[in-house]
Amino acid sequence: MGLYWKLQQEVVSAATIEVGEQKKGLPTYTAEDVAKHKTKDTKIWVTYKCGVYDITDYVSQHPGGSKIMMAVGGSIEPYWDLYAVHKNTEILEILETFRIGNIVPPKKTDIKDKNDPYGNEPKRNPVLIPSSLKPYNAEPPSLLLTEQFLTPKDLFFVRNHLPVPVVDMKSYRLEIGIEGKNKLKLNIDELKKNFPKMYTASVVQCAGNRRSEMTKIKAVKGLNWNNAAISNASWAGATLNDVMNKAGIDLDKCSHKHIVFEGMDKGPEGSPYGASLPIELARQLKNDILIAYEMNGTELPRDHGYPVRVIIPGVVGARQVKWLNNIYLSNEESTCHWQRKDYKGFNASVDWHNVDFEKSEAIQQLPVISSICDPAEGTELESGAEEVTVKGYAWSGGGRAILRVDISADGGKTWMTADLQPTNQSLYKTWAWTLWEATVPLPANHGGKAELTCKAVDVSYNCQPDNVEGIWNLRGVLSNAWHRVNVKIPS
Amino acid sequence: MGLYWKLQQEVVSAATIEVGEQKKGLPTYTAEDVAKHKTKDTKIWVTYKCGVYDITDYVSQHPGGSKIMMAVGGSIEPYWDLYAVHKNTEILEILETFRIGNIVPPKKTDIKDKNDPYGNEPKRNPVLIPSSLKPYNAEPPSLLLTEQFLTPKDLFFVRNHLPVPVVDMKSYRLEIGIEGKNKLKLNIDELKKNFPKMYTASVVQCAGNRRSEMTKIKAVKGLNWNNAAISNASWAGATLNDVMNKAGIDLDKCSHKHIVFEGMDKGPEGSPYGASLPIELARQLKNDILIAYEMNGTELPRDHGYPVRVIIPGVVGARQVKWLNNIYLSNEESTCHWQRKDYKGFNASVDWHNVDFEKSEAIQQLPVISSICDPAEGTELESGAEEVTVKGYAWSGGGRAILRVDISADGGKTWMTADLQPTNQSLYKTWAWTLWEATVPLPANHGGKAELTCKAVDVSYNCQPDNVEGIWNLRGVLSNAWHRVNVKIPS
Repeated sequence: MGLYWKLQQEVVSAATIEVGEQKKGLPTYTAEDVAKHKTKDTKIWVTYKCGVYDITDYVSQHPGGSKIMMAVGGSIEPYWDLYAVHKNTEILEILETFRIGNIVPPKKTDIKDKNDPYGNEPKRNPVLIPSSLKPYNAEPPSLLLTEQFLTPKDLFFVRNHLPVPVVDMKSYRLEIGIEGKNKLKLNIDELKKNFPKMYTASVVQCAGNRRSEMTKIKAVKGLNWNNAAISNASWAGATLNDVMNKAGIDLDKCSHKHIVFEGMDKGPEGSPYGASLPIELARQLKNDILIAYEMNGTELPRDHGYPVRVIIPGVVGARQVKWLNNIYLSNEESTCHWQRKDYKGFNASVDWHNVDFEKSEAIQQLPVISSICDPAEGTELESGAEEVTVKGYAWSGGGRAILRVDISADGGKTWMTADLQPTNQSLYKTWAWTLWEATVPLPANHGGKAELTCKAVDVSYNCQPDNVEGIWNLRGVLSNAWHRVNVKIPS
Repeated sequence: MGLYWKLQQEVVSAATIEVGEQKKGLPTYTAEDVAKHKTKDTKIWVTYKCGVYDITDYVSQHPGGSKIMMAVGGSIEPYWDLYAVHKNTEILEILETFRIGNIVPPKKTDIKDKNDPYGNEPKRNPVLIPSSLKPYNAEPPSLLLTEQFLTPKDLFFVRNHLPVPVVDMKSYRLEIGIEGKNKLKLNIDELKKNFPKMYTASVVQCAGNRRSEMTKIKAVKGLNWNNAAISNASWAGATLNDVMNKAGIDLDKCSHKHIVFEGMDKGPEGSPYGASLPIELARQLKNDILIAYEMNGTELPRDHGYPVRVIIPGVVGARQVKWLNNIYLSNEESTCHWQRKDYKGFNASVDWHNVDFEKSEAIQQLPVISSICDPAEGTELESGAEEVTVKGYAWSGGGRAILRVDISADGGKTWMTADLQPTNQSLYKTWAWTLWEATVPLPANHGGKAELTCKAVDVSYNCQPDNVEGIWNLRGVLSNAWHRVNVKIPS
């Protein structure tokens, strides 16, 4: 009888047991000690409150499958917050049977440094995996990423270039106009009430998503993102066209060459984060770009631009400025570092000694990409497994729908077509991602392991490059090669 | 002293020499005999009028470089028509010094079969390389393809699915409207005079361009195109939007799902060639789609759709219907074979036993592609060459400009960025191709050969797949892997 059934059936009164409390007579471990126990070879440990648990013998029987592995070497609490089914006496008591020790309580670090520009950051979901803390950048575990079409706000990957600003809503105004001229100023109520409220489900993806695969080839500069620096949400707000018209500007007729967006997040020298679009692209997208004040039906979280961000569907995240307070036409591209000296593509023979950022176009619309999220790299499949169910996302910039996702379990010798979850968007304006799933037979002579591969095709029949080597670049952006995940198949 | 200078300087009176005439006392060869002599190993033969010439010792001194190799094993006359510099007495006389024989005159085949549906085909430039004669399909030698930004009409690749129709201009009408309803009928003068004349330089590319590279991996069905089933011309005509408006139709408001184009070329059963676009794509392109009656400044040639074809920039050639006489809105995709049962993509594990054409979307906008046109495959570079100048084209569908072309002379280990010829079109409406050139150092230890490789990046940072294997498909379409050309470097 599996432990799952044990959990369901052997109901024990928990009233007398203090699960996770300090227990005398057991050894004490630090968080670092626990973090060393993540595999069967080293034993698999987790913590709950003050308790340390060795769950090695339990993982293969976890009803939620390999998702339990997200928590290994650390606390299970954030995951139990996500999956509330765990929060009952029976499960707590079973957990306590795996108790092996106590954990040293972490030192309280509530004393804030008043001079720390990162002293006013929002609270974040502890399941997020940070790639940097100041500024805060983090992605969700990829196993969680594709569970839902709309990524929950607190799991949405976070890409901050600077400290999160504290916005005073009484004085907040969104300015709209032409560089160097008087601008229209809207408070948040005017933005919400004076324009039709439009909705779109749209992906935000960091240019550096999947950078970690490039780093393996040769070092690059940038946050070491895995494959979850991408998320999909429903956004609501006014269209760019409507707010520009209110400011007396007709995008189709203006002679300016760029439209600039600026945020309230500022660098040490006081200049704001900014980005721009070529005017031609703004014209194509004028009714699709949202001056957004809602995410998944409620206001934006601070990490995602509260009170207002621009959503530019099909375009790299770096241009979708958060904490937006300024939109203006200009004859110059944004002078911001991240527009001019970053987020550009180069070939693999360009490195820091010979790079000239002026020779490349700022990344705007992104190329087709796909990724396997489940199973995760290194997953041990069920013993004797003959097939594997593979899940992931696919997406392309420029509104290009995903036509097909191909999956291989033999490293690309044979391919199956995945089932695609409909986006309910049109072929040429697909801003949301396409989640997909395929159950693929494992090769007969797998020798205990298999390489799972995925690749997608968009409506313009663009496909992904086979290998990382040919697209390697010094900033590790645009990492959209076929995605490969290795799994183990115990005999 | 090279033969070129000999040609220039040793002026001989040619009045008394009958170059290319029958000459007694020399052996007689058939065209098939001549065609066997194309390399230094077999000797290099050409013909001129009735003469057969062994030019093996001359080719390395040809002022036009390796272009002379286009003519080997056949007649030089079509090339001399292209390069009129050859048509002078001095060059004819030098040619005669290489005379080795007479050629059997080909049998006259002027007797037309009145029942042959292909009995009324236009005259074609003999330098075109046919991949089929009935219907006629042919591409120019790739060495000639990128000599000019606008491909000359008689070198523009020809893709006919059916016999070329003979059009009676007195009765010709272009019909425009809604399926099953009365339509607006325009004669050619009305089309020319009643609408603003718009111009665009735009590529037409066959979905099967570069199919021959797929055939090498595994047999596919389709014409065995090399890399020149693509050309670029300047087109002029009325916009789709203007003619639809004249017919009382507002594309943005109509509820129909497709717009169908039909030609006057008909299959044996009497149904016309046709194609359609999803209405959403027609809306995006309504001011860019031309109902074209001019090519490179004068009327369309018969092979390219005289009197009218539709030019749909950024879209596969198969939808750009020639001999156009019918445009209508429909709720159905075109029922034509080539819309529903052909020109679709599948993964490499789909073959004729398991293909379901209904499961794939008709190809419309094409993916990014590039190709090396000069040097041609197998070219022998100058002895001891330390670098090579490489030329070719790059293009992407959907109006996506080419941002970068990378060239490698060491099979992809190191890359150089090619110089791009400006298109004078905008980043998001680049319908023309981008011609490029790079001079690349050859690897030090080349061992007498080198693999030249090119790959392009478009404005959406889409790139080409590394290898043909991953994109192989049963119809051999969408063959846009990195292009590789092997050259020899004599020591």
